[in-house]
Amino acid sequence: MKEEFAGGVTSPRGFRAAGIHCGVKKAKKDLAMLISDVPAACGATFTQNRVPAAPVLVDKDQLSRSAYVRALIVNSGNANACTGERGMEDAWEMVRAAARAARLHESEVLVSSTGVIGQFLPMDRIVPGIASAALQLSKAGGSDAAEGIMTTDTFVKQLALHVQVNGVTVTLGGMAKGSGMIAPNMATMLAFVTTDAAITPALLQRAVKKAVDRSFNRITVDGDTSTNDMVAVLANGLAGNALLNGENDGGYSDFYEALEQMLVRLSKMIVLDGEGATKFVEIIVAGAHSEDDAARAAKSIASSNLVKTAIHGEDANWGRILAAVGNAGIDFKPTETEISFGNVAILRKNYTIEFSEEAARQVLSQKEITIRVQLNGGPGSATFWTCDLSKEYVAINANYRT
Amino acid sequence: MKEEFAGGVTSPRGFRAAGIHCGVKKAKKDLAMLISDVPAACGATFTQNRVPAAPVLVDKDQLSRSAYVRALIVNSGNANACTGERGMEDAWEMVRAAARAARLHESEVLVSSTGVIGQFLPMDRIVPGIASAALQLSKAGGSDAAEGIMTTDTFVKQLALHVQVNGVTVTLGGMAKGSGMIAPNMATMLAFVTTDAAITPALLQRAVKKAVDRSFNRITVDGDTSTNDMVAVLANGLAGNALLNGENDGGYSDFYEALEQMLVRLSKMIVLDGEGATKFVEIIVAGAHSEDDAARAAKSIASSNLVKTAIHGEDANWGRILAAVGNAGIDFKPTETEISFGNVAILRKNYTIEFSEEAARQVLSQKEITIRVQLNGGPGSATFWTCDLSKEYVAINANYRT
Repeated sequence: MKEEFAGGVTSPRGFRAAGIHCGVKKAKKDLAMLISDVPAACGATFTQNRVPAAPVLVDKDQLSRSAYVRALIVNSGNANACTGERGMEDAWEMVRAAARAARLHESEVLVSSTGVIGQFLPMDRIVPGIASAALQLSKAGGSDAAEGIMTTDTFVKQLALHVQVNGVTVTLGGMAKGSGMIAPNMATMLAFVTTDAAITPALLQRAVKKAVDRSFNRITVDGDTSTNDMVAVLANGLAGNALLNGENDGGYSDFYEALEQMLVRLSKMIVLDGEGATKFVEIIVAGAHSEDDAARAAKSIASSNLVKTAIHGEDANWGRILAAVGNAGIDFKPTETEISFGNVAILRKNYTIEFSEEAARQVLSQKEITIRVQLNGGPGSATFWTCDLSKEYVAINANYRT
Repeated sequence: MKEEFAGGVTSPRGFRAAGIHCGVKKAKKDLAMLISDVPAACGATFTQNRVPAAPVLVDKDQLSRSAYVRALIVNSGNANACTGERGMEDAWEMVRAAARAARLHESEVLVSSTGVIGQFLPMDRIVPGIASAALQLSKAGGSDAAEGIMTTDTFVKQLALHVQVNGVTVTLGGMAKGSGMIAPNMATMLAFVTTDAAITPALLQRAVKKAVDRSFNRITVDGDTSTNDMVAVLANGLAGNALLNGENDGGYSDFYEALEQMLVRLSKMIVLDGEGATKFVEIIVAGAHSEDDAARAAKSIASSNLVKTAIHGEDANWGRILAAVGNAGIDFKPTETEISFGNVAILRKNYTIEFSEEAARQVLSQKEITIRVQLNGGPGSATFWTCDLSKEYVAINANYRT
């Protein structure tokens, strides 16, 4: 584990940020701006949803032409999704406004939005807001920016960490939003990470994809994927380490581990803020034929409403967990499978069940629960994070829109 | 639509049944027996879960050797799942006990179980129960059998219908259990259909597979698949129609339509009995490239907790529906998509939204709601059935096992 400290996107060298209220929301901060003093290599992943929001389409277009970025402009309160051609024009206008305000070329700006869908952005407030945000950019603005991207989040999600890359101290800072991949209107999940590491865009992109697969793609609250989901990492090279160009370069594995740690920590913060969640659940599947098989089994368990309600009820229902693995579409032997909750072995091989309900209930009464599933069939393992399914989840989501 | 009437598995010629209490449950009926006076061709589908219960394994073994069946023995209250070798011995013992009691060959008996998992069957009660049930087999016993297979079901699910096959009146009778594919412990869904049609086992198997794909595979309450799910159709030929041997045979299409109608009606009864459900929702997707694409889109909508909670809250949240289609992994144009609730058009092409919230709320306040999604991209259509997601669902499932 790398050394973590209180900080955020402005902790690495050469990044400034601002977060302000411009009027998309009634009173809370709703606009965040982030800038790098020099061009930063960018690695990014976007929602797989076939109805991507306008800013997602704009960013893919931007990154297809240049992998170097100077600024990021994000509004919360309105997702600019399902808004057709006018939505595309508005997203581009946000890019142009940010470029003008920060004196950059349009090609150097990414844009992101989160909030209600199917409504047009209030551009008469956003454009002046961008000009105002640009005037407030500072090294102290990381927390304001992290606040500016929140929607139904109940706490600010940010973190910084140090890592030694080839003897050079590199810093990573990150911020995220998302309360269970389901809010405000179906759950946008955003994460923005800055670093002063020197790394080529191609290698950074590979690192981001791999780390997202092991973090944001391994959390689930309700299985829905938003129209706006996005993870972007900006690396501006100001730490002065020797440029990382290939996976075998000295120091790359340290950088990668730090990046994965950052994304895992931000992912877990989102699960912790899951709507209506009362318990945080870590699911570790081991002994699968491959990591992919293990991840599929873990996802099936983490996505099962039956498992999630049983955990909410503090019920050691191993049968639902085994059946969820059975639904994962992977090859495994039920008779070889072992399941434990915390340090209490529940199911042993050959369906042997010998456990103290008392001990199991004690584990399940905790706020944080670890479920281990050992398939005893191979070397593959994977970890997934989720929360329980409560009546409050239903209450929050039954009346969101109106 | 074929003519439906009050009846069940003993409505077709040559079938008798019984349903009794033998002691698996405290007081309610827990054992059902069904017999055909002559060997019946059997078509069946079983759970895809990789942890199939013992009776599922026994039946697959039986049908691999002979496609003709005389009797079916079913217990409720205990699923005989996750019970290892002893569970297999118990399932075979149920087959042998039924064969002895009804003076049949062991190869002519299928077995099924539903209830809690991970516990051994009380064979000291089940074996005498089977002998007792065999003595009570009668034409009047259809309803008792339908009651004997229930677990948390709140009503008996049975139906009969007539169909003309090449000028001969053929009868189908059916019974099912399942309250939302989630109870008692993760939701066994069973359906048994009898008919006096004359049809070859191979053609019947094809018909069953196709009809199950359009009925039981198109309902969802929470997406979980049980270890015990099974649909079996027995056709004993006593109606005297010319043997149906191929899909082009005269009368086959009439028989198939009747079978599909029967399975769709039984499926819908299960959704209507969904745990905690307050609304029945029919989802019709049209204009997809293929029927398979339409079914994938409909399933994605029907499986989305966000859509289901919005319906529970009577919220016309078209964005969640569109995003669910976006998650289905099919090719479609969001700008061409139209969505309506009942007869109220909500979303029109190019994200045009013009509807009366009043009218939408009136539709959503009904007990039965139809959602139509027109993708305007091809000839494929499919219908799915589901229910809303309520706080009661969470309450029922949070404390089921203990």
